[in-house]
Amino acid sequence: TPLDSAKLLLAFKPAPKAKAAPAPVDSEARIALGRMLFFDPRLSKNHDISCNSCHGLDTFGVDNKPLSDGHRGQKGTRNSPTVYNAAGHIAQFWDGRAASLEAQAEGPLFNPVEMALPDDRRLVATLASIPEYQKRFRQAFPGETQPITRATVTQAIAAFERQLTTPSRFDAFLEGDAGALTAQERRGLETFVAVGCTTCHNGGAVGGTSFQKLGLIEPWPHVADAGRFEVTKDEEDLNKFRVPTLRNVEKTAPYLHSGSVQALPEMVRLMARHQLGQALPEPDVEDVVAFLKSLTGALPQQYISAPELPKSTPRTPKPDPS
Amino acid sequence: TPLDSAKLLLAFKPAPKAKAAPAPVDSEARIALGRMLFFDPRLSKNHDISCNSCHGLDTFGVDNKPLSDGHRGQKGTRNSPTVYNAAGHIAQFWDGRAASLEAQAEGPLFNPVEMALPDDRRLVATLASIPEYQKRFRQAFPGETQPITRATVTQAIAAFERQLTTPSRFDAFLEGDAGALTAQERRGLETFVAVGCTTCHNGGAVGGTSFQKLGLIEPWPHVADAGRFEVTKDEEDLNKFRVPTLRNVEKTAPYLHSGSVQALPEMVRLMARHQLGQALPEPDVEDVVAFLKSLTGALPQQYISAPELPKSTPRTPKPDPS
Ligand code: HEC
Ligand code: HEC
Ligand code: HEC
Ligand code: HEC
Ligand SMILES: [Ca+2]
Ligand SMILES: [Ca+2]
Ligand SMILES: [Ca+2]
Ligand SMILES: [Mg+2]
Repeated sequence: TPLDSAKLLLAFKPAPKAKAAPAPVDSEARIALGRMLFFDPRLSKNHDISCNSCHGLDTFGVDNKPLSDGHRGQKGTRNSPTVYNAAGHIAQFWDGRAASLEAQAEGPLFNPVEMALPDDRRLVATLASIPEYQKRFRQAFPGETQPITRATVTQAIAAFERQLTTPSRFDAFLEGDAGALTAQERRGLETFVAVGCTTCHNGGAVGGTSFQKLGLIEPWPHVADAGRFEVTKDEEDLNKFRVPTLRNVEKTAPYLHSGSVQALPEMVRLMARHQLGQALPEPDVEDVVAFLKSLTGALPQQYISAPELPKSTPRTPKPDPS
Repeated sequence: TPLDSAKLLLAFKPAPKAKAAPAPVDSEARIALGRMLFFDPRLSKNHDISCNSCHGLDTFGVDNKPLSDGHRGQKGTRNSPTVYNAAGHIAQFWDGRAASLEAQAEGPLFNPVEMALPDDRRLVATLASIPEYQKRFRQAFPGETQPITRATVTQAIAAFERQLTTPSRFDAFLEGDAGALTAQERRGLETFVAVGCTTCHNGGAVGGTSFQKLGLIEPWPHVADAGRFEVTKDEEDLNKFRVPTLRNVEKTAPYLHSGSVQALPEMVRLMARHQLGQALPEPDVEDVVAFLKSLTGALPQQYISAPELPKSTPRTPKPDPS
């Protein structure tokens, strides 16, 4: 017998929605500035990589590579997660080492294999050399005597990111429109709940609410990445990862922290087996995949259109390919 | 009918225990250094406040004041939580704004109403002026060319804190010793689970695993503190706080982020009413209180005994009462 609606939806409360309005602190000026910073490659050592290089906003916030290319083509060690709906996550990064979007953004800017800025001074010198940025930082942070700092840069980027939500048909369904899902998608949702996927993939982002071990029930062969252990140094956290959101998962392959799984049906089979100890019958796999595709949302096309970036000046530090 | 043991204990898995051994990265040298730093008031602007001032290790990691006294007697705005068992928390601070003990420790050192150091330079200058610290940092961080930095200071403190666990009779019970709890304590545990306290107070620290709204069911009058909202800027997070551990709760009054509740039985009644919408009968309150007291652990007396601190030298920056 199918589960009743109330029970089905329990795991997804509070119902996710695009925020009605930005938090008061995220002024329009901050958001507009954050958008520019997100797209500006001059925030990288060689002026060739922006946040958008690895988190392409028109490709659902990812680059669809197993591992991204950073400064001088260097590869990182983890798959780039999407920036859409990340604001709702309990912590940022696969290991949760940043408690907020603001803290997160410091990572890539100064990471030698990502944007590779040497220090705060280089960041501030670059932005302060451009009069248009000077003006915009003053408007976005009117109370500050020194408005261009590492902290204000990350606050503006975070303000922009907080509105990166992707309402989907599943949200219409959660809000009571029973016809928003097809019969197969609805069956997939029931399987998703009944089988236990919602133990881990729950809440507004259908994920992002806890840290869980990859290979909880049936061990995963060779997990090279210590995951959450890196942050807590607690053996119990070895190979735990912040559960990813499944919103837009159809579009964010390859999968896992390692980017090592390409196909969504295969990913569903592996989850059922390793996280829940079940061999999921093929028709159920197909239903669950259909349900997961109903989580693909509408991109906020206007919000994410690339802004015009102000020109460098003679004072702007030069690209540094070293 | 009493719940069976398996069901009773589900919420507390994985069974908490004092770590068998420190993480390999937490070398003996790091732990010993972290202990010294935890007790050293020269890490404060006026050389009068150490971590131990607010987190007295011989008083269960707290100061038992509603709000602590920091630099120049200034009061902060939140109650000092215990440092015991904090390593297991999903995030640090009442609002979870630090993702790790390392990130947490940066807070008080530079907070103007706590230890009030002006910047990294003052921290490094102080420690580098003392030959014994120079030697100990070199031993604790043998790979580093500059072993005294903000990052190594917080790594050493975190290494020390990770071993601050307090095994209690409840752990003996969890490990199968049915006689470790009295009949009343066991009844209290059953009520604690049956009534729903474990929805929020669960896991190794009996708390610390999620953020929850104070006044979830019945609104709490006047919550002045925005809590988790400060970190996420998400209205859904208004007045949410990281659920505190209940280990040693008998000893860590006053209660709540505000330190505004003094008595444990009253706190239990308030929780039942505001978090669960129930008027808990007095005999049940007494049983739950009895159970909570079984969570009081043994302090690691030798581990926490105050170390001898090396003397200042003429190069050590002077106390600054300003
Ligand atoms: C060179 C590729 C690259 C660049 C450039 C980059 N990122 Fe990332 N991003 C990643 C990777 C890889 C991760 C995951 C790393 C990890 O978990 O350790 C990540 C994680 C994140 C997350 C966490 C999402 C989650 O669900 O945990 C956010 C948010 C984010 N990046 C935003 C940004 C912003 C903002 C910028 C620019 C300031 C940026 N990224 C630049 C590759 C990149
Ligand atoms: C016990 C926890 C747990 C359960 C149960 C669970 N998952 Fe996961 N899931 C995770 C974790 C943790 C990851 C990320 C692991 C990693 O990156 O190494 C993940 C990753 C995924 C991914 C890849 C997402 C991405 O962007 O990389 C998909 C798809 C997925 N799960 C679907 C499911 C489905 C469908 C089920 C039920 C059949 C399920 N999960 C059950 C914890 C769980
Ligand atoms: C003047 C008082 C004071 C001093 C000094 C102080 N703390 Fe705290 N500590 C607090 C308060 C108050 C909080 C909670 C603040 C909040 O949540 O915003 C806190 C929170 C913490 C937490 C988080 C615990 C949890 O469960 O979230 C840890 C760990 C901690 N302090 C360790 C330290 C260390 C290490 C030092 C020294 C470097 C230190 N504290 C110095 C008052 C103090
Ligand atoms: C829905 C979540 C939730 C439930 C259910 C819940 N609590 Fe709490 N509890 C919290 C939160 C959140 C706090 C901290 C709130 C704050 O500081 O403002 C807290 C604080 C406490 C404290 C004070 C601890 C301290 O150190 O300040 C005690 C004691 C406590 N709870 C016991 C209980 C008991 C007993 C029950 C069941 C009758 C219960 N709680 C049910 C979320 C919950
Ligand atoms: Ca970094
Ligand atoms: Ca991916
Ligand atoms: Ca207290
Ligand atoms: Mg910093």
